[in-house]
Amino acid sequence: MTTLWSHRYAQRTHRLTSSTIRELLKLTENPKIISFAGGLPAPDFFPLEQFRAACRSVLADGPTGQAALQYSTTEGYLPLREMIARHISRYGILAKPENVLITAGSQQALDLIAKLLINPGDQVLVEAPTYLGALQAFNVFGAEYVSVPTDDDGLQTDKLEAALRSGPRFMYVLPNFQNPGGVTLSLERRKQLVAMADHYGVPIVEDDPYGQLRYEGEHLPPLLALDRAAVGVRSDPAYRQGNVIYLSTFSKTLAPGLRLGWIVAPTEVIAKLVQLKQGADLHTSTFTQMVAYEVARGGFLDKHIKRLRAAYRERRDVMLQALAQNFPADWGVTWTHPAGGLFLWMCLPPGSDSRTLLETSLRQNVAFVPGGAFSATPAEDPDCHRYLRLNFSNASPIMIREGIRRLSVAVREQIEAGEYTDVEAVYTAA
Amino acid sequence: MTTLWSHRYAQRTHRLTSSTIRELLKLTENPKIISFAGGLPAPDFFPLEQFRAACRSVLADGPTGQAALQYSTTEGYLPLREMIARHISRYGILAKPENVLITAGSQQALDLIAKLLINPGDQVLVEAPTYLGALQAFNVFGAEYVSVPTDDDGLQTDKLEAALRSGPRFMYVLPNFQNPGGVTLSLERRKQLVAMADHYGVPIVEDDPYGQLRYEGEHLPPLLALDRAAVGVRSDPAYRQGNVIYLSTFSKTLAPGLRLGWIVAPTEVIAKLVQLKQGADLHTSTFTQMVAYEVARGGFLDKHIKRLRAAYRERRDVMLQALAQNFPADWGVTWTHPAGGLFLWMCLPPGSDSRTLLETSLRQNVAFVPGGAFSATPAEDPDCHRYLRLNFSNASPIMIREGIRRLSVAVREQIEAGEYTDVEAVYTAA
Repeated sequence: MTTLWSHRYAQRTHRLTSSTIRELLKLTENPKIISFAGGLPAPDFFPLEQFRAACRSVLADGPTGQAALQYSTTEGYLPLREMIARHISRYGILAKPENVLITAGSQQALDLIAKLLINPGDQVLVEAPTYLGALQAFNVFGAEYVSVPTDDDGLQTDKLEAALRSGPRFMYVLPNFQNPGGVTLSLERRKQLVAMADHYGVPIVEDDPYGQLRYEGEHLPPLLALDRAAVGVRSDPAYRQGNVIYLSTFSKTLAPGLRLGWIVAPTEVIAKLVQLKQGADLHTSTFTQMVAYEVARGGFLDKHIKRLRAAYRERRDVMLQALAQNFPADWGVTWTHPAGGLFLWMCLPPGSDSRTLLETSLRQNVAFVPGGAFSATPAEDPDCHRYLRLNFSNASPIMIREGIRRLSVAVREQIEAGEYTDVEAVYTAA
Repeated sequence: MTTLWSHRYAQRTHRLTSSTIRELLKLTENPKIISFAGGLPAPDFFPLEQFRAACRSVLADGPTGQAALQYSTTEGYLPLREMIARHISRYGILAKPENVLITAGSQQALDLIAKLLINPGDQVLVEAPTYLGALQAFNVFGAEYVSVPTDDDGLQTDKLEAALRSGPRFMYVLPNFQNPGGVTLSLERRKQLVAMADHYGVPIVEDDPYGQLRYEGEHLPPLLALDRAAVGVRSDPAYRQGNVIYLSTFSKTLAPGLRLGWIVAPTEVIAKLVQLKQGADLHTSTFTQMVAYEVARGGFLDKHIKRLRAAYRERRDVMLQALAQNFPADWGVTWTHPAGGLFLWMCLPPGSDSRTLLETSLRQNVAFVPGGAFSATPAEDPDCHRYLRLNFSNASPIMIREGIRRLSVAVREQIEAGEYTDVEAVYTAA
């Protein structure tokens, strides 16, 4: 039906599609459903007592309480920016508060970066698969994409050169426990990637929401740190600021309901982003920034993250165990083994479609996100529909076991209905 | 100096300028300065006790506290949207929660509306003068402008037709106690404006941050209500949704540090804006939405607004009185007499420049915003530099008296320095 408004929307909105995840989240409000769909933290670990104490302290009478409720600077609350600068400096780089901009979650960071860098029709280099929220943020500014495949060691740097030479505006990478793949970029590849980006003059946007949530192995240096180490030796000071825009968030470590993220970047990039943020929302809530700082300070955040690591490691292990128990090898279903983060990535046999599986699964009251949503170039990659993303942070261990059992029932139904016609062939080949 | 990043920014950023107000706000952090520059509410009226109680209640153990810290829907917290829908329905229109989207302040509302409606090069019809934050939000999406002058009754509707026929994408209007002019669109003109917008098929974006802060006279119906009344009689249901996108905020009535605003619009427009907001920041802080609802509910917000009205009326009256006492008529300086809101608009004699006056004023430790910042088309309107905006909500009555005295010293200095060469002529003519 044509309405008064049908033809009033700007061209950039013509590609708008609602996020599959957020539409699914609405379905999963039904308490019967066990949801592996969203990227929600476990609510039972939110430090409510610390938040109550922080609110009391921030809203005390007088100047502090009044400051918390008043307008403030676009850059963000200085003590919070200082804390973030100190934290990132752990990785051997010198970051100052002037290198930090507070945003409304890392989603706003993606929106501001897209606004800053993308002209309509520009190419963005992304991983296959990649975070669908980034695609949503980039699409509206007219981005086109060149995808580089990933494997268990993250983005395949040996396939990077051709993509870089096709002239992308920037590359968007999630090096740690990637969303949705769950894989981690190896140190060797990190170094290659930084060197190649530098060589081709292509900036890196490094998205690191889960870096702190590592359940095994050693923390690897962020691309930001590797790049700074490399460019520190340049002779021309104008080129010393570095090639990386880094972003992260409190959503996975403290609480997503605060909507607090941040960008670390060269000061001249931060200055531009501040101007864009002024026009976008003036500044992020003074109140939530002060509350988050109160909760996080004095080492509490580090202690809290340790607790989260233990809890999420258990949930990951429960999911991996349940998968091994419920998915016989002859089904031809495989999955990644993430060393951290919130997600693992499942691959169905050739010819299967995770969108069809979702319909069957929802009848079993279990939800996930079909893999196609994470492809920047689905037309070139019909295989993307064989995948699905499973979240293991939100549901309790008991629910994870039950949910994986139900998922296996749904997969069995699909197999018995002859949906996975190529299973036999795959199994024989393997 | 050319740097690594100099040529990396997208074309839309080339028009970026930092907001004069926000740069000034930095200067005015110096406690010596009496600032009439920002649009800051009086911090001494923030209801701290109610905020403390609301936080305790929202962060109580169990599901409520966990929900406050978790991800939530893009549309916003349902009880808050219901409250806003009830409130706007006071004006005789039927608004449902489906017509309401919660935003990060009304600045984000402007950003989302610009994203939705403006193609690069599109014209936006604005008032002269108009809100500079709107210009910042629109500029980045490539807006061009057609300005229509205002007088004491708001936008001059007799000059509207030519502007409408030049094909603007939408018109942006602040009908109540306009920022920066302080003037209010009369009922007669509201009806004309709504009818003409309907006739020419040009949507109206109605910005109403101060509507509740009226200090005298009767509240006038919003354009949204007048438009709904008019389109209610259309025979084609597809055209019954109305021609107005309305926006407002809690920044002036509750606390700007929350960053909470809202849009009321036809459901199909809200649906598109929700998609854009997903990509922009997923959703507004669950926590601040729940806290604001707790503070506002049960009639508290209405009672609080009554208190604010009394306090701000007093401050307005003190400023008007101080102006009358300190600015002799033969200086040729005039100002508006706002019936509400936060600002009045001063006009210096022909030939004067409020930017020069600001320099002199800052030496007297008093600040304001020069008028040029509020012109969408300064090249066509050199007169815009004769104006300046004065805020009367933030400083205490004593400080307002002292600030206006200092401002008069600065103006006298300018006059004695021969800056206002045409004063004599103006005075003689008047």
